[in-house]
Parts: sequence; structure tokens; C-alpha cells
Amino acid sequence: METFATRGYNNASLAEVAARVGLTQAGVLHHFPSKAGLLTGVLDLRDATEIGELGDERPRGMAFLRHLVDTAKHNAAREGIVRLYAVLSAESVTDGHPAQNYFRTRYQGLRTMVVDALHEAVEHGEVPTGLDHETVATAIIATMDGLQVQWLLAPDSIDMAAATETTIRALTHADLPPSPEPFQAGRAG
Amino acid sequence: METFATRGYNNASLAEVAARVGLTQAGVLHHFPSKAGLLTGVLDLRDATEIGELGDERPRGMAFLRHLVDTAKHNAAREGIVRLYAVLSAESVTDGHPAQNYFRTRYQGLRTMVVDALHEAVEHGEVPTGLDHETVATAIIATMDGLQVQWLLAPDSIDMAAATETTIRALTHADLPPSPEPFQAGRAG
Repeated sequence: METFATRGYNNASLAEVAARVGLTQAGVLHHFPSKAGLLTGVLDLRDATEIGELGDERPRGMAFLRHLVDTAKHNAAREGIVRLYAVLSAESVTDGHPAQNYFRTRYQGLRTMVVDALHEAVEHGEVPTGLDHETVATAIIATMDGLQVQWLLAPDSIDMAAATETTIRALTHADLPPSPEPFQAGRAG
Repeated sequence: METFATRGYNNASLAEVAARVGLTQAGVLHHFPSKAGLLTGVLDLRDATEIGELGDERPRGMAFLRHLVDTAKHNAAREGIVRLYAVLSAESVTDGHPAQNYFRTRYQGLRTMVVDALHEAVEHGEVPTGLDHETVATAIIATMDGLQVQWLLAPDSIDMAAATETTIRALTHADLPPSPEPFQAGRAG
């Protein structure tokens, strides 16, 4: 993860990965069939800690939008993960990139999840009717992504969580519920 | 520009650039001292057509925010430029990337330009007082960036201009003025 985050996929070398984990390149290739296979493994590992894997366990309605803000807050304490995601998602649009379908599918899934949460929020009476849920969902995800690049370049100038919350409140014409509990590392939310 | 857009900087080869323009690698290096120097040249060329170079000529107040929406609309017809920007801006956060300072300075300049336009919009009575202009500016720029990656991966699903306009209207609590004129390719705005 560290190698892909600091080099990008295209510029990462198996030699560096092998050196970091104390294996030979052949040793790494014993566990992963190729550099592309290693990337898939890294993305799967990352997903295990991420909103994309919340599935049926995700908070409903505006509580899910609060969860996105909490994720942005949480992300400010894990620069490596943010960098990995920002670099690989953009790099995935280059020709023949092995993570292109991964990110295309991932964004479609995220948009669907936010759209579903917005529908729930309307049903719960949390947000007004008449919003274009597809556009709002697309814009919220875009804001979170774009903030990551600005924050990585100027961490002292950018507050990802504050800007995410401001954008979500504006786009939904609604306040967000409080976080379920103070964030504590290692504790399930 | 095409090589950096389709490969990223790290993965681009001078050999490919040279072949595209019908020169030897030595011929390319006669005009640009290094691959990093070539990247600087490409970014300077791109800027010549971009909002970052509007300077004192930029529209004032909400007319500038309309200009951002028009830029997003325009961008949907120039995939190569969008890809170049999306790939290089994110890649710039990798270790030792030669465009890191370029993008750090560029984002700071864009934020300042949008903040200035928001102050003008308040003075003109176009938007209400009490907005956090820094946060709103950061979020607008972030939305535009994030939309580019989603659009590059799914151009038929994402309307960059519509999502940008929705976000700006929501964040400023204001409508946007009409475009100064219908967009026409090749005509100065």
C-alpha cells in the first residue's frame, strides 16, 4: 500500500515492494501472480476498512451522510490511505490501467449507495422532496475526492470534514444528525 | 499532452513523445532539457487556455461562477485535456513529482480567485452574507475535480456541468446568471 501510494501503480517497482517486506521478487510473485495482481490485493485490503464494504450494515438516511463526514474526518489521520486512493483512482483513467474497471464499478456502487440513502432520508422526512438524487450523490462523492487532492497538497489549509459537511448540508437542504459516538480507533462504528 | 494524459507522467516515455512528433529523443531534448522540463512545457501550454490564466480579465462575482460551469460544459468536449489534468494533479502528490509545487500553487490560486469572486458577489448583492467563502471555494473546486474522474470513467452517466451548477447554487444559496453567449467552439468567450 505504501509503495503504490507514494509511487503510483505505473511507477511502483516489485523490487521496492519486495525489499519493504523482506522477500525476493520471486517471493512476492509466489503470493501475487503479477504487479497487477498485487494491486488488486491492495485494493481488496483497503476495501475491508471502507464504506464500500458496509453493505447492508450501513447507516440509513442522513445518518449515512454523517458517516461520510466522519470518514473524511477519520481520513485526515491516515494520509497513506488517502494518497493511495487519490493517486490510483485518477491513474486508473490512463490507458490499459489494471484498476480501471475496479474504480468504474466502485464509483457506480458509491453513487447507488448515496442515492439509496437520499431516498431513505426523504422517506424519513429528513430532507425535502424534489432533489435530483443522482446529481446530488455524484456531487457529494466528487467533493470528497477533490478535497483529498487539495488536502494532500496543503494539509494545513484544507479541512476535508468541514468542507464535506458544508457541501452535503447545502446540497440536501438539511442538517446532519450528530455522529453516533466519538470516533475511537479500533472500535467498530 | 496526449502522452502524459494517456500514460501519466511517471509512465510516459520520451521515446513515445519523440515518435509522435517525428523527432529523435535527442531532438526533443534539444527543445526541452528533460522529461520534467517537457511536463512544465505541457502544463504552461494547457494554462494558456484555462481559467487560471484569466487574471484581471476574469468575470466578476457570480458571472465567474457561471464561467466555471461553462468550463465544465466545455470540458465534456475535450476529454484529452480533462484526462491530462485529472491524472497529473493526483499523480503530483506522489513522492518527488516534478509538478507538485505547480499544483499546490495552482490550487491556492484557484481558491483565491473563487474567494474573491464570492466577495464580489456579496458586494453586488448576488449572494447572501454569512457564507464561509474559503470553505465554499474549496468545495466548488473539489467538486469540479472529482467530477472529472467520475466522468472519465463513465462519460454517459455523468453530467459535469449540471452537477457543478447544482453544487454552486446550493453552496452559494444563489442562482447563476446566464452564460454571456452560447458556447461556440473556437470563439473567444
